[in-house]
Amino acid sequence: MNFINGKCENVKISYIGGGSRGWAWGLMSDLVSCHDMNGHVTLYDIDMVAAENNVIIGNKFNEVEGAKSHWDYSAAPTLREGLKDADFVVISILPGTFDEMASDVHTPEKYGIYQSVGDTVGPGGIIRALRTIPMMQEIALAIKDVCPNAWVINYTNPMTICVKTLYKTFPEIKAFGCCHEVFGTQRFIAKAIEDVCGIENVTRDEIKVNVVGVNHFTWLTKMQYKNIDLYPLMTEFAKNNAKSGYTKGKDTNWMNNSFDASEKVKLDLFLRYGVMAAAGDRHLAEFCPGNWYLSSPENVKNWGFGLTSVDWRKGDLQARLEKSRKRVTGEEKLTILPTGEDGVNQMRSLVGLCNMTTNVNLPNRGQIPNLPLGAVVETNAHFCADSVTPCQAGNIPTSIYPLISRIVGEQETVVKAAFARNLDMAFAAFACDPLVNIPLDKARALFDEMVENTKEYLKEYK
Amino acid sequence: MNFINGKCENVKISYIGGGSRGWAWGLMSDLVSCHDMNGHVTLYDIDMVAAENNVIIGNKFNEVEGAKSHWDYSAAPTLREGLKDADFVVISILPGTFDEMASDVHTPEKYGIYQSVGDTVGPGGIIRALRTIPMMQEIALAIKDVCPNAWVINYTNPMTICVKTLYKTFPEIKAFGCCHEVFGTQRFIAKAIEDVCGIENVTRDEIKVNVVGVNHFTWLTKMQYKNIDLYPLMTEFAKNNAKSGYTKGKDTNWMNNSFDASEKVKLDLFLRYGVMAAAGDRHLAEFCPGNWYLSSPENVKNWGFGLTSVDWRKGDLQARLEKSRKRVTGEEKLTILPTGEDGVNQMRSLVGLCNMTTNVNLPNRGQIPNLPLGAVVETNAHFCADSVTPCQAGNIPTSIYPLISRIVGEQETVVKAAFARNLDMAFAAFACDPLVNIPLDKARALFDEMVENTKEYLKEYK
Amino acid sequence: MNFINGKCENVKISYIGGGSRGWAWGLMSDLVSCHDMNGHVTLYDIDMVAAENNVIIGNKFNEVEGAKSHWDYSAAPTLREGLKDADFVVISILPGTFDEMASDVHTPEKYGIYQSVGDTVGPGGIIRALRTIPMMQEIALAIKDVCPNAWVINYTNPMTICVKTLYKTFPEIKAFGCCHEVFGTQRFIAKAIEDVCGIENVTRDEIKVNVVGVNHFTWLTKMQYKNIDLYPLMTEFAKNNAKSGYTKGKDTNWMNNSFDASEKVKLDLFLRYGVMAAAGDRHLAEFCPGNWYLSSPENVKNWGFGLTSVDWRKGDLQARLEKSRKRVTGEEKLTILPTGEDGVNQMRSLVGLCNMTTNVNLPNRGQIPNLPLGAVVETNAHFCADSVTPCQAGNIPTSIYPLISRIVGEQETVVKAAFARNLDMAFAAFACDPLVNIPLDKARALFDEMVENTKEYLKEYK
Amino acid sequence: MNFINGKCENVKISYIGGGSRGWAWGLMSDLVSCHDMNGHVTLYDIDMVAAENNVIIGNKFNEVEGAKSHWDYSAAPTLREGLKDADFVVISILPGTFDEMASDVHTPEKYGIYQSVGDTVGPGGIIRALRTIPMMQEIALAIKDVCPNAWVINYTNPMTICVKTLYKTFPEIKAFGCCHEVFGTQRFIAKAIEDVCGIENVTRDEIKVNVVGVNHFTWLTKMQYKNIDLYPLMTEFAKNNAKSGYTKGKDTNWMNNSFDASEKVKLDLFLRYGVMAAAGDRHLAEFCPGNWYLSSPENVKNWGFGLTSVDWRKGDLQARLEKSRKRVTGEEKLTILPTGEDGVNQMRSLVGLCNMTTNVNLPNRGQIPNLPLGAVVETNAHFCADSVTPCQAGNIPTSIYPLISRIVGEQETVVKAAFARNLDMAFAAFACDPLVNIPLDKARALFDEMVENTKEYLKEYK
Repeated sequence: MNFINGKCENVKISYIGGGSRGWAWGLMSDLVSCHDMNGHVTLYDIDMVAAENNVIIGNKFNEVEGAKSHWDYSAAPTLREGLKDADFVVISILPGTFDEMASDVHTPEKYGIYQSVGDTVGPGGIIRALRTIPMMQEIALAIKDVCPNAWVINYTNPMTICVKTLYKTFPEIKAFGCCHEVFGTQRFIAKAIEDVCGIENVTRDEIKVNVVGVNHFTWLTKMQYKNIDLYPLMTEFAKNNAKSGYTKGKDTNWMNNSFDASEKVKLDLFLRYGVMAAAGDRHLAEFCPGNWYLSSPENVKNWGFGLTSVDWRKGDLQARLEKSRKRVTGEEKLTILPTGEDGVNQMRSLVGLCNMTTNVNLPNRGQIPNLPLGAVVETNAHFCADSVTPCQAGNIPTSIYPLISRIVGEQETVVKAAFARNLDMAFAAFACDPLVNIPLDKARALFDEMVENTKEYLKEYK
Repeated sequence: MNFINGKCENVKISYIGGGSRGWAWGLMSDLVSCHDMNGHVTLYDIDMVAAENNVIIGNKFNEVEGAKSHWDYSAAPTLREGLKDADFVVISILPGTFDEMASDVHTPEKYGIYQSVGDTVGPGGIIRALRTIPMMQEIALAIKDVCPNAWVINYTNPMTICVKTLYKTFPEIKAFGCCHEVFGTQRFIAKAIEDVCGIENVTRDEIKVNVVGVNHFTWLTKMQYKNIDLYPLMTEFAKNNAKSGYTKGKDTNWMNNSFDASEKVKLDLFLRYGVMAAAGDRHLAEFCPGNWYLSSPENVKNWGFGLTSVDWRKGDLQARLEKSRKRVTGEEKLTILPTGEDGVNQMRSLVGLCNMTTNVNLPNRGQIPNLPLGAVVETNAHFCADSVTPCQAGNIPTSIYPLISRIVGEQETVVKAAFARNLDMAFAAFACDPLVNIPLDKARALFDEMVENTKEYLKEYK
Repeated sequence: MNFINGKCENVKISYIGGGSRGWAWGLMSDLVSCHDMNGHVTLYDIDMVAAENNVIIGNKFNEVEGAKSHWDYSAAPTLREGLKDADFVVISILPGTFDEMASDVHTPEKYGIYQSVGDTVGPGGIIRALRTIPMMQEIALAIKDVCPNAWVINYTNPMTICVKTLYKTFPEIKAFGCCHEVFGTQRFIAKAIEDVCGIENVTRDEIKVNVVGVNHFTWLTKMQYKNIDLYPLMTEFAKNNAKSGYTKGKDTNWMNNSFDASEKVKLDLFLRYGVMAAAGDRHLAEFCPGNWYLSSPENVKNWGFGLTSVDWRKGDLQARLEKSRKRVTGEEKLTILPTGEDGVNQMRSLVGLCNMTTNVNLPNRGQIPNLPLGAVVETNAHFCADSVTPCQAGNIPTSIYPLISRIVGEQETVVKAAFARNLDMAFAAFACDPLVNIPLDKARALFDEMVENTKEYLKEYK
Repeated sequence: MNFINGKCENVKISYIGGGSRGWAWGLMSDLVSCHDMNGHVTLYDIDMVAAENNVIIGNKFNEVEGAKSHWDYSAAPTLREGLKDADFVVISILPGTFDEMASDVHTPEKYGIYQSVGDTVGPGGIIRALRTIPMMQEIALAIKDVCPNAWVINYTNPMTICVKTLYKTFPEIKAFGCCHEVFGTQRFIAKAIEDVCGIENVTRDEIKVNVVGVNHFTWLTKMQYKNIDLYPLMTEFAKNNAKSGYTKGKDTNWMNNSFDASEKVKLDLFLRYGVMAAAGDRHLAEFCPGNWYLSSPENVKNWGFGLTSVDWRKGDLQARLEKSRKRVTGEEKLTILPTGEDGVNQMRSLVGLCNMTTNVNLPNRGQIPNLPLGAVVETNAHFCADSVTPCQAGNIPTSIYPLISRIVGEQETVVKAAFARNLDMAFAAFACDPLVNIPLDKARALFDEMVENTKEYLKEYK
């Protein structure tokens, strides 16, 4: 990397999971929209063909109208070759296939446990973690050897567990985890205050927030729009909308257009606990006791959100494969469409082109004093040249401490169990999960069944 | 208080709840067994007759064979008169009557929630806390005014919540909370190693332990007998006895002779989580998810412990009333019987007659670094002249962090709600309780019913 | 305050010490340069005439070429009237007169103690603190009563002690302390890298820094320019320039044009301790053992900085009074000249017009984990709508921990002593000061003499 | 080690520095006085002859009248052989010879710096640390390999630095450092209250204390005798005795009979800082600014203590060598004389024969919250079977924080410098030392001269 006339040239990005037909295209679009950086993107994927197709698509993005910078793409045959000379490493992988995900999400249904996403906590999140952690260990070790000074941006779920694994494997790693769920809540609040106060065109970044919690279960201890403290205002709003739900102004970005919800879960939690949760209802529900929002498909429906079936995902994948084909062949014309993600701006900050403050996942070194040091938490952090510094976010409020602290312990135990390749220890965490609301023997049977279903990815475990 | 020939004379003890027909008699017995202190005990009770009966009994204890010191007893008509000139304040009250307790314990059964004790956590523990906290606030304020330098020993449950209330009301109070549950576990371990190693006459204080957790949900991160690390040994023991349970050498002290259990819960937790819990199974079960040990009376039975009905307690009270009558009239002869409690030795330490280290409940000022500062926790503490200093007990182990941390948050929220006299905030905690394993609307109905049942003691709440 | 078309209207600023002939004019200039805020400034000063003159000057600033917003000025006869309706309170007072300052700075010279500034630490800083703290207590109490929600920006020295007093008096205050010393060091570094690397036009805010320490004794644990880690580069620079000093590109802003130094102290500390100090050498020297840089006027000269005499200040005041007269009468034409201070941008952030991150003084709530909680420290903080959140700056490096930690304790003790109006306790801190490098009896004689000299401002002390 | 009839048999003690003619004999005496342990002591010393002489003396102790247990002694030719099978490792070495110590103590006098001991801090303490740390690293590595589960008791000075080195080299080591300075202060206080209150026969362990600080600079935040808070009483005492000093009832144990002081330093510090220091005045003086108590031999004399010359130590060594010869030959009859040290009782606690609480040196894991984690501090700790747990000693009081915190940073830097074998970094700490009250160039000249004088032991440094 070097600077010429105020532009950062020859930035090297390594994309692990670079065959993706979603995030990868979004990043390509955001990169060519960036006027003051250019460089090279190396795509690595266990599906080399997918990576190579994305090389074609990526290179085509340079020709799209509105492109402001040039990025060369190539595919790497191995992880370590993919990491060579990287200034940035983006990790966005699918641990296992949709078949494993189908087991994660749907096997628990046989035991009366419903999951709206199944990739973070709950039975599905835990089993997914068990197969993800060894992959993350391998990636972290490769980074340590090949590009120890690169900045590592993780998008893979379960986020908390991935970031923890990176740091536990290579403590000096310069890694953080990014997620857009808080942004969605900022947009929801922006819409709400338009409704309530008649203020128009409020953008999500004008909703200033202080974030505490863990990924997908983040909470806002401060919400402010200009000189307006939004707490009293949103309390009023919640009283009026909690029953009916609120669906105006939903995000229509193609990257996250399905999976909508009516905010009923969020507003119910807000009215009961006095703190605004900042993730989609489908995620929030999975962190709460199973009897609250996920006891049955009917219950879910009443709370105004849906259970994403893996069949839908499989169908969606077919659509995306077809889209990929058309983009490779040129049947589909590429366009630049801002994703609303912070990724490229984070890179700009880290090379020194700007400052920014946004919410990310990092090990706790005091930013949330009443959670254990070392556990991965999500708070605001300040980004500037070669530096990500968490803000002193403050304590988890007392009322929601029971909901969050148990998750922290659960996820820490899962990581510990996975590092020890110890399924019994993993079950100890599994049995504590809020959704595993069944007798112990049933819980063990479910655990064993889920492990058996995904055994191809759990060979190292005993 | 003053010292003459190495004895501490004129110690003044104020006993709040001094009409008790249990703890009070135990204390009387322990006091006259003490060779190097004597003084005066003032009994205060809302049941003045009960207090006066205990004055008679207390004074008679001076005549019992084996009495080594003399203690005068009197009854006080008001709390503040009871506290006058106190060097020590003992708080051991029953918040409400057995009718309220009946609601605490049995109303949830209508909703499928079973509680083995119902006085600490669970629906019963929370409602009990709501009526106890205002009483404790009143006591703390009176201590602040009347005897701010007295040492305050609390035995009332819910322990954590009582101690927290004392400190929140009067931050400079010199208070701690005492409970004998850890002792019972030490005795169980002593018995177990007799069995396993053939070592005889191991006493409970020879089982050296490091205690972490909250009252009735304490855990031993170290168990040692002389040069033997008991962790591997007890793991072996647990594997052999977890299924069958273990009932040898049970405590037969009259103060806690009922309520026995087979240690199956403790051993199950030990095998799953790798840490030894140190309270009776009846208590431990209530802190765990409701589906584990308390899902039905049959489940309870299978785990080898019982549900204490309040009818039994009412019957027991009749027996104790009769016992009281006989003790007052002299029909029953008094005898000195060591309770095994630490109370009198703690007093001896605090006046400077000895040093001791034992487990007590105190606000966390760092003794358990991964729990919130200010929350009341149970750890070992060092007692010496006018000083109780917690030991640096260390972190809650990761595997049990989900189980304990949520309880800390729940109890902190209950206290906050009670100080605000806010039932909605209290329900927020109630809904998070591990035993409240039912839909939200049902949970609220249960909460409202329990509040209604005990409304006489909840008049200040809105 | 309200928002119209993206502008923040009717901002109310209360300026305590508003008769100033320096900072006040700078603020006036910065305010009219601001395109998206306007409002009212109330000036309060114990010298009412000075305040009224500044009202005239302030109002004239609206007419200056380049003014982008309008600010009305008025003078208030009392502190509390001055604070009325304030959104922002600026505190910039001179505690006592130049006569007291003359004693602070020059009395110690009789004992062989030389001070380059005498307003922060050292004998002068401590005595100045003793007279400042009661004033700050009064201001904090008035803010608590009159405008508890206002943001309070302190510029008064001793900074640490003022901010601590504000929080100790009114713990909920929304206050922070601002100082430009770090900026000067950023400018120095920018100049240095121009020299070394030939990179031109590097601005001070392009030098990204992580700040730790206490006001006027701040240190940079990270220095970065774009992708260049400045630590190795500045080490090389220091080796080449430590002996000769470095004076290129000195700040010529009229507000801080005198008092220059050659950076020899800074470079000497850097080479010895491996961390870059970030304040002017005149300040840094006063925090170090007296034998290092301030043992005699010759020693000072050799280290390339000067001792600011209070006579010079008195002369300078005359010049500023004359300047004031001319500005009031119109003999001197006003011009807008950016001060380079962050004050107005901080206000813009706090009303929600922008985000920013800059270094400020705040109570430690974990941002520097190895300094005591509650002590006032200087680190970066993130500013956004109604919020100032310190960044997790990290530990004070081991090598400089002896230099900084002792100062923290000294300043905490001075505050404690002043709140108790206890001169003996203040002397305990005085005797520990790095510059008080004389026998105990001499130290006490000096202390007593300085107290006597300034007794008019120390009447409340015993 | 094994237990037979309540006695702990076959305890294996390894004594590093076992040729000592002081501590070793005291330990021998204490061991045979112990009724419930026996075993084997292996002596290792770089002076093998000295070790072998002590084998003879040690074995003879078994025959002394009053011996209650039997201990076999042998000498080991290498460190690792000496450590074999150890249950306990005692480290009590002299780093270098009296020639090096002569340089440590007396070279600074040429620069006007006087030291009363010269083994802890000050120029002498730092240079001594530089030669001690590599030795301690070697010992820690040997323990890690040979007897990682042994308890390690260090008596070597500089204590803080030795204990830190042990933990930094082998973090899982079970080590602590012991020093009797606090005991001396307890005896002084006991004597004082006899005088003031007329209470007789108060023993040192009846003076209950809470200890905070670093070795040889420990402070008592609580002093209590039975029900008497000694703070007001000792304040009165200090007012009456600070000027004249107080020398009654001085310790006459042969192990520490010289080196007495008049407590003037301690009382002066107490009156000024409001906290009682708990070490001998000769040690305390060295931690304070050089102008206070050590500016000249006259100043020292006026403060009622002495400068121990190394010539005296050399003479004393001759006397002890002669004593050794006589003990080996039998010319001098051995007697059992309690040392008053805690060592043997600590061992008894650690094997499980008793509990005790005493002050020891351990890494800070929260016992002193306002000092850095990981720094070695001295506080009370609870000893029981296989366990040493620090008590939550609380914060360093504000008034003495400047005095203590700087020392913590100084000693941490010295250790860091020694691990890096970096003399420049060591000088950075040296220049900050309170006694190094001289210009920087002089300080460097002194440092270099002291390094040159002791270069034989500093060969690894660059």
